[in-house]
Amino acid sequence: MTAKGLKDMLGRQGLTPVEEALTILLRELAALPLKRERLPLPAALDRVLAVEIRSPEDLPSHPRSTMDGFAVRAADTFGASQSMPCYLEIDGEIAMGHAPEGEVHKGKCFRIATGGLLPQGSDAVVMFEHTIPVDDRMIEIIKSVGVGTNLIDRGEDIKKDRAALSQDHLLRPQDLGLLAGLGIGEVDVYRQPRVGILSTGDEIVPWAQTPPLGKIRDINGITLSALASRCGAQVTDYGIVSDTEEIFFAGVRQAAQENDIVLFSGGSSVGMRDLGERVIEKLGNPGILVHGVALKPGKPILIGLSNSTAIFGLPGHPVSAMVCFELFVGPALRLLSGIPVSTKPFKPTIRARLDRNINSAAGRLDLVRVQLKQQEDSSFLAVPVLGKSGSISTLSRADGYFFIDTQSQGINKDTEVKVHLLQ
Amino acid sequence: MTAKGLKDMLGRQGLTPVEEALTILLRELAALPLKRERLPLPAALDRVLAVEIRSPEDLPSHPRSTMDGFAVRAADTFGASQSMPCYLEIDGEIAMGHAPEGEVHKGKCFRIATGGLLPQGSDAVVMFEHTIPVDDRMIEIIKSVGVGTNLIDRGEDIKKDRAALSQDHLLRPQDLGLLAGLGIGEVDVYRQPRVGILSTGDEIVPWAQTPPLGKIRDINGITLSALASRCGAQVTDYGIVSDTEEIFFAGVRQAAQENDIVLFSGGSSVGMRDLGERVIEKLGNPGILVHGVALKPGKPILIGLSNSTAIFGLPGHPVSAMVCFELFVGPALRLLSGIPVSTKPFKPTIRARLDRNINSAAGRLDLVRVQLKQQEDSSFLAVPVLGKSGSISTLSRADGYFFIDTQSQGINKDTEVKVHLLQ
Repeated sequence: MTAKGLKDMLGRQGLTPVEEALTILLRELAALPLKRERLPLPAALDRVLAVEIRSPEDLPSHPRSTMDGFAVRAADTFGASQSMPCYLEIDGEIAMGHAPEGEVHKGKCFRIATGGLLPQGSDAVVMFEHTIPVDDRMIEIIKSVGVGTNLIDRGEDIKKDRAALSQDHLLRPQDLGLLAGLGIGEVDVYRQPRVGILSTGDEIVPWAQTPPLGKIRDINGITLSALASRCGAQVTDYGIVSDTEEIFFAGVRQAAQENDIVLFSGGSSVGMRDLGERVIEKLGNPGILVHGVALKPGKPILIGLSNSTAIFGLPGHPVSAMVCFELFVGPALRLLSGIPVSTKPFKPTIRARLDRNINSAAGRLDLVRVQLKQQEDSSFLAVPVLGKSGSISTLSRADGYFFIDTQSQGINKDTEVKVHLLQ
Repeated sequence: MTAKGLKDMLGRQGLTPVEEALTILLRELAALPLKRERLPLPAALDRVLAVEIRSPEDLPSHPRSTMDGFAVRAADTFGASQSMPCYLEIDGEIAMGHAPEGEVHKGKCFRIATGGLLPQGSDAVVMFEHTIPVDDRMIEIIKSVGVGTNLIDRGEDIKKDRAALSQDHLLRPQDLGLLAGLGIGEVDVYRQPRVGILSTGDEIVPWAQTPPLGKIRDINGITLSALASRCGAQVTDYGIVSDTEEIFFAGVRQAAQENDIVLFSGGSSVGMRDLGERVIEKLGNPGILVHGVALKPGKPILIGLSNSTAIFGLPGHPVSAMVCFELFVGPALRLLSGIPVSTKPFKPTIRARLDRNINSAAGRLDLVRVQLKQQEDSSFLAVPVLGKSGSISTLSRADGYFFIDTQSQGINKDTEVKVHLLQ
């Protein structure tokens, strides 16, 4: 199904298939330079490295014991067994946190604790439980060890000058640990995208107000702000902007100047949608990239790019707005955060069995909200949450969603579906 | 396999199976009262509701159109079709954001936009594309509508006094949207757990320092802080505390007084582990709950409860410490955050095919770190990341982990494993 084959109900323009719309959007954004900043290590959690990091040193810098026991020359223990132990003289002890003093000579050993540095001469550790004390100065070894046993060698964790972390790596807790272990105190990461959010429509009042008859509380502002925050964006909520063309244009223009992404929502009526299109075109090139996608809910989305700011005109219905966020804004935010779209493309999903037949129109992607119910055999049942796209409570009841693809006219009960979690 | 059947290598005490250790821990914590606080709505994202929330009003408060078109009396359109249209007079227009004025009489209709309030007398909306204008005052209806078509009814999203969200519900973006839509500006949620983190061991220096020979940089402090932050905890890093009994005890006692959970790490040596045990017992009842679990890596973990603070003595090796966090501290934090352990127990995992044989000792749970590689058929291959538990880089290279259960002595190449993601 090509874009040409798809029309909206007014026949005004071709609807773009979801995948094509996403490709167009991400291709345009990928051409923009990513912004960078330098952060102290602890502040870099969940950020993406803008450079490769090479290890400035060997980690560990010296062989260390991984067991409590005795540092030995492995050759001294060869052949040792329960029935035929060998005997070693205790010639010293490794004090934790200090450089080892002295050297392990043939037939001798040093007492050592986990983490202790191996003294000169030794090349293995025999653990306590494979030794039997003879007296204060002598032990029996009842199991032989090979060279390198029970120790972590110099550079075994990571070698000097090797890549510790690659460019575009997302910094997880263990990655901060690795960098801390290497003494790297500051890192260059991509900047968090800035997102400006506007709600529009003369029927909308701030949610903290009691709306007079005819008006409703703004739901999209807080929902979209929370969604963007969770993606790691820095969010500015510009509140409610009148849908008078002049005021609306000025509001979106200011947000576009101050952010990397602008989301406005509220334009489900034809008039509002036309206004949104005009405003995006007026803001600067290349202007509108996508007007309307073959998707339900979420069809009337507008996607534009003005100078280097992505502008999304989201449907006013809360469910549609959130679906458009999931499918388009989220990926755009990840790309601008520096997370490569093509690498590590696994997204956790839950396989579940559909509990009823669901119809769908061919030619569009359908997104079906579901509750998940765990069965006695610990598999999951997906129970569709039905309701209009203006109904925010349907999203609140949903645990996730699955897709019915463009070609399909529906899915039968008991079919296995892949549920994307809304957590 | 019971606890009695398991011994650590020193034969000193029974090792507890992982599941039993977790059950003991969570049972003790579940008996503690959860702390609450009241927050403004936007600050409550990702927090858990401490009370059920009932809707103070119908949402929407009035029937609204979900289409651009004409508000009609459905009965007037019955039988209308392309070949046999019916005719209605346009008798008014609904101004967006205002209470509707006037009433729709038989044979008449009002122009209405998406979101507009239905005027008196009307009970359905005919969308524009099913009408043909005759002149300024008259339209042809070419498709009949039933009562309630193309509108969202009063209370259809949520009815007054119905439960909008249940107690113990995790507040996601769409849930904030629902509460905003109902005008609920403050919510009672469970308090974020406070976590105090100490690193110990005389061989440890702060990671920002250059360690002299014999010492190493603290890796666990920053890693555990980041892990706890990601779980929504309020973290205090107490830094490095000497393993001298008196100083160590004072440090842990202060942290225990100031937090809901205390993590200390560094005690992989037998001496340090004994010290940890003594300190936990000395802090208050019930003291030690678990000493050592049948798990690799992570065996030497200590779990205690002193007054109402959970104390975890984590192994010093970074990999072991992080594994213990995943399996024990994370669940404890979720429980103290108010997330019910037994509801919605789905955890996203990736199914992957193991790319080599892995051995395991029966009698303990083995956690195997893996990299995930996507294949041409888009399935995943799990490639074990081998390395010692002191090697932080192995965790940095891992995309996730899977378990080899207590009974098993290994898993064969090409077996499907469930990989928990380390994202």
